[in-house]
Amino acid sequence: MEEQKHKLQLRSIRLEALGDGIFAVAMTILAIELKWPHLEDTSYKTFVTAFHEILPSLLCYVISFIVLGIMWFGHRMIFEYIGKTNRHFIYLGILFYMMVCLVPLSTRFLAENDLQWGTIFVYGLNLSLCNLTLYFQWSYGINRAGFLERELPPEVKKEARFLFLISPVVYTIAIVLSLWFPVASIVIFVATPLLYLIPNKLDKYLP
Amino acid sequence: MEEQKHKLQLRSIRLEALGDGIFAVAMTILAIELKWPHLEDTSYKTFVTAFHEILPSLLCYVISFIVLGIMWFGHRMIFEYIGKTNRHFIYLGILFYMMVCLVPLSTRFLAENDLQWGTIFVYGLNLSLCNLTLYFQWSYGINRAGFLERELPPEVKKEARFLFLISPVVYTIAIVLSLWFPVASIVIFVATPLLYLIPNKLDKYLP
Amino acid sequence: MEEQKHKLQLRSIRLEALGDGIFAVAMTILAIELKWPHLEDTSYKTFVTAFHEILPSLLCYVISFIVLGIMWFGHRMIFEYIGKTNRHFIYLGILFYMMVCLVPLSTRFLAENDLQWGTIFVYGLNLSLCNLTLYFQWSYGINRAGFLERELPPEVKKEARFLFLISPVVYTIAIVLSLWFPVASIVIFVATPLLYLIPNKLDKYLP
Amino acid sequence: MEEQKHKLQLRSIRLEALGDGIFAVAMTILAIELKWPHLEDTSYKTFVTAFHEILPSLLCYVISFIVLGIMWFGHRMIFEYIGKTNRHFIYLGILFYMMVCLVPLSTRFLAENDLQWGTIFVYGLNLSLCNLTLYFQWSYGINRAGFLERELPPEVKKEARFLFLISPVVYTIAIVLSLWFPVASIVIFVATPLLYLIPNKLDKYLP
Repeated sequence: MEEQKHKLQLRSIRLEALGDGIFAVAMTILAIELKWPHLEDTSYKTFVTAFHEILPSLLCYVISFIVLGIMWFGHRMIFEYIGKTNRHFIYLGILFYMMVCLVPLSTRFLAENDLQWGTIFVYGLNLSLCNLTLYFQWSYGINRAGFLERELPPEVKKEARFLFLISPVVYTIAIVLSLWFPVASIVIFVATPLLYLIPNKLDKYLP
Repeated sequence: MEEQKHKLQLRSIRLEALGDGIFAVAMTILAIELKWPHLEDTSYKTFVTAFHEILPSLLCYVISFIVLGIMWFGHRMIFEYIGKTNRHFIYLGILFYMMVCLVPLSTRFLAENDLQWGTIFVYGLNLSLCNLTLYFQWSYGINRAGFLERELPPEVKKEARFLFLISPVVYTIAIVLSLWFPVASIVIFVATPLLYLIPNKLDKYLP
Repeated sequence: MEEQKHKLQLRSIRLEALGDGIFAVAMTILAIELKWPHLEDTSYKTFVTAFHEILPSLLCYVISFIVLGIMWFGHRMIFEYIGKTNRHFIYLGILFYMMVCLVPLSTRFLAENDLQWGTIFVYGLNLSLCNLTLYFQWSYGINRAGFLERELPPEVKKEARFLFLISPVVYTIAIVLSLWFPVASIVIFVATPLLYLIPNKLDKYLP
Repeated sequence: MEEQKHKLQLRSIRLEALGDGIFAVAMTILAIELKWPHLEDTSYKTFVTAFHEILPSLLCYVISFIVLGIMWFGHRMIFEYIGKTNRHFIYLGILFYMMVCLVPLSTRFLAENDLQWGTIFVYGLNLSLCNLTLYFQWSYGINRAGFLERELPPEVKKEARFLFLISPVVYTIAIVLSLWFPVASIVIFVATPLLYLIPNKLDKYLP
């Protein structure tokens, strides 16, 4: 057939490059959003006060950077299996990047305001949407004939779904909790990335 | 001949890498331009007011991000067919990137001012120039002997021209309309990207 | 010999990737530095006034963007011939990038101040140093045994030197002229990039 | 075994691309943080005063840019030997990038405040943590079976460790010295990068 001959490969490599660029910028932007205070004098006390002032921002920076790092890892992993793209897959990717680019903003929103339901809601919602859109992209990709570059073991499929969807669930709990105990939500935001650092079932497929 | 022996390939891969970087930065910058309001207190009402305040900016962000995503897709697609470059082709590419880098600015200009003819004109003109410069690059590339990496079916050529040139036409209508009904122009800016999300004749050439 | 066996290739590809990233960010930053005025009302007159206000900045943006585009092209071309690197070549590259990253700053410095000797000096010096450091890198690379990936025709060598060094000469004239006729310097800054857009002797080596 | 068949290669190329992007952005951001003064009039005296004002910032920019350049080189070199990754290696990489992204901030902190113990401490600590996290990543990588792409000569291993760890030691001395002689610390910050520019034992392995 005519179409068959002209069919494009549309390999995923360019989309990965765009994604790497977006993550690189978003991660660096996270740091710019931090505002170091100006030191009025050279005393030790002024420095310690300034350090205390920036501590919450620094904590938010560390959490968001690790979360973005983990998302980048997830984003990187889906392309170990998916090697081709089409228009819809790319638009799902753009949707995911749209959420990722908002993370520096919602991080600053969390850091610069008093701890409260509103900022925790925005931050948690943002992170949840990142995970959900990435999961949509993954789901679409693995179910599209001809996209898979290598066999996807059922265990990987199941564990990946768990790892993509556990965060939105936990973040929803954090948002609900924040109505009464906003500090508990922060503890959850700190603890969640640790879930992704402990060994899991997929490690045996990695070098 | 001497020149033949020393002739360079000048493959397009580096230009694509520059373009991916520029799109990645421009997309992330879009988000930085959003200014989240500072919350005066922790009341639900303050949060809702703040959310209402940022809503127009957020809408502009979403529109521009999707438009940039579609342009990136177009930019990515032309290199499925064009695999070589020369000085003029690269300078046309620089011209396209020059327009793309202005999108975060004209988006902010639209978001931060009252809805009016001037800002809609700037925004619509910017997006139109993006499409037109990309179309010039595409036209130059496909008509230059030896640039094509694979056969370009006439249907693809025709449909691509349509997809490149439909936006500037629609945006011109939006600009003219804005003299009387600026809200209608915004509706057009929201609706235009959807044109690129529905199935089209080129989908059958994709995986 | 032991060292021979362990000798690294140190291909130039990573340095090119870093450079593409730096150019992509610097080009986009150029645009952010532009400050669009806030429109006080929706009248046609306000818009025209605002447009007049931003015109010099916009012109500086266009000049700098094209200049960066030409430099990127030069930077891209040297890697058509040079395929390997070592520590010194990479440090010369870092020096070049250090100058490139300052271009958005000196552009804003030129745009935001009244036209005068000082700003023209800074801008012209910055662009000259970009060209000179790139020329040092090129010179070092083509004279280092084993760096060349393909034969370098004497004509290319001579023409490349001319193209690298003509700008610093012209920019020096512009700086000197600015002591008496700062407007003439701007004309020179506008005209110089055009030198690189007209056909030259190297075009016959390109596709 | 089932796992063997499904084992991923997880090549390091994507992590390198993310790193190149992060370095490119961080380097460019360094420059944006410089604030050029506005010139009140066009006199020679105003220009010289402005130049004197920006000189410390410019010096900090040059030091930090060169330091980031050297770190990028180190980061680039480890991937000459290490060609594969796993989750832990990537998370160590994210930790390194987290430190790199803070360099523009601590540079500005050093440049914008009076010379004192506090800012030198933050700057020195930041640079030391960059080197230490990169060293952790390197150590983990070369000791993990199957990660090495080529034989690692014992001399390279020893010299690399020296080059990774000498900076944190020197920076610690600079921090301690700053309690009494902050100017001496700046001299050390200027001199340390030079250590990496002089010939060393690894040069014989490079082209």
